Order: sequence, then C-alpha cells, then structure tokens
Amino acid sequence: MSVFQSAALPVSLSKADFKKLEPALRSDLLAAQLEMIASRAFSTVIVIAGVDGAGKNDAIARLHEWMDVRHLVCNAYGPPTREERHRPEMWRYWRDLPARGKTSIVVSSWYNDPLRDRVLGRDEQCVFEQRLARINRFESLLAHEGVLVLKFWFSLGAGAQKQRLEAVRGGKARARRILTEWADIPHCADAQTVFQQAALATSTASAPWMVIPSEDPDARDLALGRSVQLAMAHRLKTEPGEPMAVPAAVAGVERRSPVEAIDLGASLDKERYDEELERWQRKLAHLVDRKAARKLPLVVVFEGNDAAGKGGAIRRVTRPMDPRRYRVHRIGAPSEEELAHPYLWRFWRAVPRKGQTAIFDRSWYGRVLVERVEGFCSEADWARAYNEINQFEAEMARAGALVVKFWLAISKEEQLARFKARQETPYKQFKITDDDWRNRLKWDAYAQAAGDMIDRTSTTEAPWHLVSAEDKRHARVTVLKTLCKRLKAAL
Amino acid sequence: MSVFQSAALPVSLSKADFKKLEPALRSDLLAAQLEMIASRAFSTVIVIAGVDGAGKNDAIARLHEWMDVRHLVCNAYGPPTREERHRPEMWRYWRDLPARGKTSIVVSSWYNDPLRDRVLGRDEQCVFEQRLARINRFESLLAHEGVLVLKFWFSLGAGAQKQRLEAVRGGKARARRILTEWADIPHCADAQTVFQQAALATSTASAPWMVIPSEDPDARDLALGRSVQLAMAHRLKTEPGEPMAVPAAVAGVERRSPVEAIDLGASLDKERYDEELERWQRKLAHLVDRKAARKLPLVVVFEGNDAAGKGGAIRRVTRPMDPRRYRVHRIGAPSEEELAHPYLWRFWRAVPRKGQTAIFDRSWYGRVLVERVEGFCSEADWARAYNEINQFEAEMARAGALVVKFWLAISKEEQLARFKARQETPYKQFKITDDDWRNRLKWDAYAQAAGDMIDRTSTTEAPWHLVSAEDKRHARVTVLKTLCKRLKAAL
Repeated sequence: MSVFQSAALPVSLSKADFKKLEPALRSDLLAAQLEMIASRAFSTVIVIAGVDGAGKNDAIARLHEWMDVRHLVCNAYGPPTREERHRPEMWRYWRDLPARGKTSIVVSSWYNDPLRDRVLGRDEQCVFEQRLARINRFESLLAHEGVLVLKFWFSLGAGAQKQRLEAVRGGKARARRILTEWADIPHCADAQTVFQQAALATSTASAPWMVIPSEDPDARDLALGRSVQLAMAHRLKTEPGEPMAVPAAVAGVERRSPVEAIDLGASLDKERYDEELERWQRKLAHLVDRKAARKLPLVVVFEGNDAAGKGGAIRRVTRPMDPRRYRVHRIGAPSEEELAHPYLWRFWRAVPRKGQTAIFDRSWYGRVLVERVEGFCSEADWARAYNEINQFEAEMARAGALVVKFWLAISKEEQLARFKARQETPYKQFKITDDDWRNRLKWDAYAQAAGDMIDRTSTTEAPWHLVSAEDKRHARVTVLKTLCKRLKAAL
Repeated sequence: MSVFQSAALPVSLSKADFKKLEPALRSDLLAAQLEMIASRAFSTVIVIAGVDGAGKNDAIARLHEWMDVRHLVCNAYGPPTREERHRPEMWRYWRDLPARGKTSIVVSSWYNDPLRDRVLGRDEQCVFEQRLARINRFESLLAHEGVLVLKFWFSLGAGAQKQRLEAVRGGKARARRILTEWADIPHCADAQTVFQQAALATSTASAPWMVIPSEDPDARDLALGRSVQLAMAHRLKTEPGEPMAVPAAVAGVERRSPVEAIDLGASLDKERYDEELERWQRKLAHLVDRKAARKLPLVVVFEGNDAAGKGGAIRRVTRPMDPRRYRVHRIGAPSEEELAHPYLWRFWRAVPRKGQTAIFDRSWYGRVLVERVEGFCSEADWARAYNEINQFEAEMARAGALVVKFWLAISKEEQLARFKARQETPYKQFKITDDDWRNRLKWDAYAQAAGDMIDRTSTTEAPWHLVSAEDKRHARVTVLKTLCKRLKAAL
C-alpha cells in the first residue's frame, strides 16, 4: 500500500495515439498560457521533482517546445553559491519568482534539502515536519499573492529506473542527459516514505502535488502538459488562493482511478471459504482478547461501491467480537443537529476509547465522495477535506488507535446484477432505493472521487486496503485476514 | 519590549462612565447574539485564557448577565476524566462544540496543556511548535466550518496579580472565586515568553488572539463584551473562514494605540547631544568592525509618522559605517515590476548577506500601514500579512541575521510644525507633498494600524523599539544606543 497508488498503474500509449493527441494539447496549452500573459492575472511556478531517470529533463524540454518560451524560464538550483549561502535558505527561490504573466519551471526546488536531510538522517522527524510547515506557509503566501503553484513528482518503479539509468550510462542515449538529484540516495523504501510524508503534508488545497507516472515518456509528457493547461485554465476563472481540485496522480491519456484498477478476478469456493472464514474469525477472536487489545482503540472503516457487500463483511468481522466492546456506526445523511456542526463532529463523537472498536459502515469519507460528487459541499470544502481527514486520523493514531480502512470494489456489471437481485427478492427490496440507481449513473465521477481519496488519504498510519468484492466470499476473508494482520502488527 | 504592548497601557474607567457605557453595549451584544441565533449562520466559541487573578470568572459571569443564556454554555476543562484520557486529546473539545446559533465559552482550553508542558520543560521547543501547528489546523477547520473562534488573553502585571490574589485569600472578597489555572507556574518571564510565542504563532487571520488588560474590572468586561459583539456583527456580514481584522489588544472604553502612549517628553540639549552622538557613533563603528560582525547580516527598519525624522536618524547611523558594507533602501510606491510579484518579493531581494547591513527607510510594514489605511489591499490581504511578515523576519533570523526595528513617534502638533517649516524653507519643500497632508487627515487610522502592527509583529527575535522623536536629538541618540545594544548582544 502506498500513497498516490494510481501512479503505479500501468500506462502505455502508442506512437500513433500520441501523434493524434499532441496537437490538441499543444494548442490548448498555448492558448491558456497566452491568456495568462495577456491578462497578467497571475504567474505560474511549475515545480518538477521526482526520481532520477524518470525523464524530468526530457519533460522540461517538451514544455519548452510546447509553450511560448519568451515567457518561460527554467530555474535549476545546485548547491548554494557563496552569495546564496550567506542568505536565508529561501532567498534564491524568492529572487527568481516570475512576474505576472511569466512561467517559471523550478528544478531541484525548496523541497530538495528537507527531503535529503531527512532521508540521510540529518534532520529529526520533528525538524523535518517544521520545514514542511514553513514550505506550506511560503506556498500559501504565493498562492494568495497571484502565483499559481504546480508541483509534479515524476515516479518510476525501481526496476524501470535501473534499466533507464543503465541505458543512458551504456551510451544508448548519449545525447540525453539525466537530471541526477538523488544519485547518492538509493531508490529505497525509506526514501519513498519520506517523500510520501512530504507529499501528504504539503498537498494543500492551494498548492497540491500531482504524481506523474513516468514509465512511458509520451504519456508522461502528455500528463504533465495537460495538468498544466487545466490548472491554468481553472486559475483564469478563479481568485488567488482558491483551492485547486486537481487529481493526485495523472496518467497519460486518460486518468485511471486506482479503484478501477483493482483485479476483480479473485474468488473462493464454498468449502475453502468456510475453512478460511472459520480460521480468521478464530484468529480475530484470539487477537481482540489479548491483554494488549484492552488498551487499543480500534477504528475500522468500510467504504466501497453501492452493493459491494459492506454490511455482510462487517457482520463477519463482528461475529467473533464481544458485543460490549464494539459498535457499528451506519452513516447516512446527517441529522439536523449534525448539520449544525462541523462535518467531522459526528465522527469525533464516535471515536472509541481504549479497548473499544468502532466500525464505520460509510464514514467521514462521505465528504470527498458523495458530498463532492453530488455537490453537497463546495469545491473549496472538499478540496481541503483531504488534509482535515488525514489530521483527524493522525490524532486518533497519536492517541494509540489503530485505523484500518477498506475499499470494497465491484464491477459495474456485478453491481447491476446485485441491484436487480435486490429488487426481485422481497426481503431485500429495502436495501435498494432510487438513490442507488441515481448514484450508478455517476459511476465514473464516483470512481474518480474514490481514486483521489485513496491517493490523498493513504497515510503511513492509516493506509487504504483495496479489496475486490466481486466475489463476496473472497472479500470477507480478505477483510478478516487484513484486519488480523494489522491488529497483530499493532499489538 | 513585549508583544501585545498595548495590553500594558494603563486603563481606568470611572463607575459613572461604566454605568453610561454598559447599557449600549448590552443591547448591541444581545442584538448581535439574537441575529446569530435567528440566522443560525454560525456558532461562536469564546476561549477565555490568561493569568490567575485577572478576573476570568467575573468576566464570564458578566457575559452570562449580558447575553441570552438559553443559547450560551460554559465548558471548563479540568484534568481529563477516565473517558477523556482514553481518547485523543482533542476529543473532549470536539464533543462540546456548539451548534449553529449557540455560543460556548471555553475555559482551560486546548491551549492549556501545550503551554503548561512547555513552561514546565516537559516539551521541547520543536514539539511545542508542532502542537501549536495542530491547534492552528483545528481552528482553521472550525473557522471554515461555520464556527466563529474568539480567543481572549486576560493580562495583569505581576504586582497587580499579587495584590488581587492576596485580597481573595485574605477573605476580603470571600464570595468570589479565582479561576486558578497556573497556581503551580509563577508569573515569570519564561512563562510570559511561552505565551507570547503561542499567541503569535496561533494568531491566524481567522482566529486571532485578543489581549484584554485586566487591571480595571469594568474596563476589562466592557472590552471583552465589545470585542465579542463587534466580531459577531462582522461575522454576520462575511463568509466562513474569512479573516477577522480584530485589534490585537483591546482596552476598556476606547482603544488606545501603543504608539500614542509613547512618552514624548524626553529631550537632549545641544551639548549633551554632541557628546552622546560622538560616543555612540564611535561605539557603533567599533562594533561593526568586530570580526564577528563580518559574519552577521544586519537589517535595520525605520518606520514612523511622516516627518518624524527617519532620514536624519538613518544618516547618523550610517556615518560611522563602511559604505561598502551597507545599503539604504528608501521604499516608495512599488514599481510596475514589483507590483507584478508578491509584495514581499522586493524586500526578499534586498536581504543582506553576511557582513552586510540593509537599512530600510520604510519597509514591508507598508502592507499593514499605508496599504491597509488607504485600501490598497483587501482586509484579507493585510490581516494575513502579520503572520507572513513574522515568518519573513524569522527566516532572516534563522539565517543568523539581526533584525532591529524602530518606530519613530511624534505628536500631531509637532508634525504640523514640521510640515509648515518644510513648506516655508525652499530647500526643504521637496520633502513635503500633498500625500503628506492627506495622510495627516487619517492620523487616527494610522495610529490604530501602527498599534496593531506593533502588537502583532513584536516577536522575540525581532521586537519593535518605540522611540520618541519629538526631540530629534533624543531620537537619534536613542536609535544609535539601541542599535549598539542589540548588536553587542548579538555578537
């Protein structure tokens, strides 16, 4: 499990497709840039970061090809010069800020030193977080003062990176240069964790990170160009400092949501299911009875497509538990009393004490799912909710709670079959409403919202577990198994 | 020097005055509360904090007398109960949040533990700052979600506190109760510093601190009531999360600005002046020649009333300095290029390197002075500028710079005399423009803006020095002397 999971989705684009898509993007991008230049309403800062060998240099070259270079400058920072070393760390970045109408591409930005110092162990976690907080204040000031801040992380798997770096060293692509920022830092799990922390902490509503999967160069550049263009076009219509509801990860041609990429093929036959269910329920009963579990607040969140089988999975989880020690919260539309409070209020009230378990059948994630898709709150509201939710879960984790989150996924076809079955079975009819059919019409919008949610709220303390629920038996056993594993690790 | 200097200004109010002012305040306050109740547009949280013996209890009782108590509740927090201890720290505060239309007075709030843990040395500075950052996120969420967050610090000098506490203990005021929150923590400089840090770090645009001088009980309660009423009335006209440009410190009847409280009586005769000038200039020359000064970036800021003599003071400062090592920046209206960038950009560019001195004749404080008073920027812009400026100066200080800020004050009469003298002396006429006369008409607005500025930007690293400039000789010598002292302490 990792943040920005969509970035790991395979992307590929044929040369022919690229040829077809490139002209449209170029003209859209140029049009947006020219409108920005003409209006002088804002300037744009494009931060390019990411693993070595992901093609940062090539992508920057492509932006230069596509945009009006008279109003585009690239600022790359190496070790500070004497002039720079004798001034505050941020001085050189301030000095090079673009004027309204101008665009600056920033390479080896203000993120590099904090990331480097943390990965190499030079900074303690607390100092690292302070530096990130200072960066947030800096970027927030820029956003309020008419600078559009776009931050891109180019991601590449360890295997692909190795290949790419060897190809260049081997002379196969002699003319190309690799922008080496992390040569001394291995592509290791630690470094990834530090970046993920930074990305979550500094993905603010007004200056969020976007991750660009970089395996396929054409897809990578299209994703970058399209993101810049969409952000500029959006900014032309809004005020300084307003949130940008950009996707967390953008793949080449069309965005794919991580929830759509879940492999739905897994299944379990009846016999195997009975066996496994029995086994993991026994395991769970054993775990929650342990002495250490008496001190652990446990929070289990179930989200997923309508009819994905959340209720059934929850019943399998609660069966081996002591009813005095758990409570299932079924979250529907808020009451009048709840509407009169901040949206997180009703969930804060349900935070379990030590030794107690709170299970949520739908949850605070409604803010960035149904409320976003149905327009029950403003874009500004749900765009800042990702951070608010991360903070909420971090507060629980800090108090010792274990937070386990499941997304149960089914295909559109399977959902239809289940809806129909519900309608035809008298005692199941209560489970299906007009709302369900209406939501189904917005399948794609929900998939996108769910994808953004998973990318932006999979933190180290509270990652999402994506579970195929196409086969109910598989889903139930997977949920139990995952819960046991997380519990075991926590106790 | 301390933050919220206005809070230390003497306030007194006669019984008769109070009797006259109270009815108007009561009806205004009640009207604002009833409109909030009727509109259910927001809820109000009033945090009451401050030193023991300042009369927090009495003031709360007065609010209960003045407001509609059916919609008012007081939540006071002691050591956490078992239920509370087993949940996240913030749980109890979330639980008790008021619904829209309701008002909650919060005593011993979420600030108490962080303050206490820092003063008693249980938390490192870094952890303390993290806790404050979490509080900021919490309050920002509330502000965006329709909660008006008002935070009051009741201040009382050490002497007055002692008297007050003894009077209660001695039985003179038996029926009254003192809200003791800090009994185990002495009224010492350390504790004051910790509170000041917290107040500056958590005085955000949407949830700023207001300091209430509490020596005179009637004045104290009037200040509290009026602040609540004005904030509610303001909030009724604005959207959630919008900045509240409230004064940093509110005295009883009429606000007084700390710049108006400067004692303008000091003066120096010619002979003494020549002697002192000579002495301190020699001292300064000696200090800036020291080896350690070669490593120190020095930033000196001059602000003050028009015609207060900033230029003359600056010339006395630069005379003993090596012209290769200092630069005077005279800040006027921004150029077109400067306007095309964030307002701090031009000042960031002027940040001196090690061994260099940058002297600013007017500065970035224009944002919260002329730009505020003349409406050159929005209320939202200047309300968030205090924090941005503190952050800017903190970045300089972190890089080793010494930041020395002077406010040169003259009386309105003296200004008139100097304006006239300038007009009548041909070679001085260039110094006086129509702008100067226009600004003079807004004397009170400028005094208020300067007062807020001094209260909100006197940080530990970069305090304001208030200098009487009614007598130019006195001002020049004081500036030199202060600069030498700060330099000596820094080297």
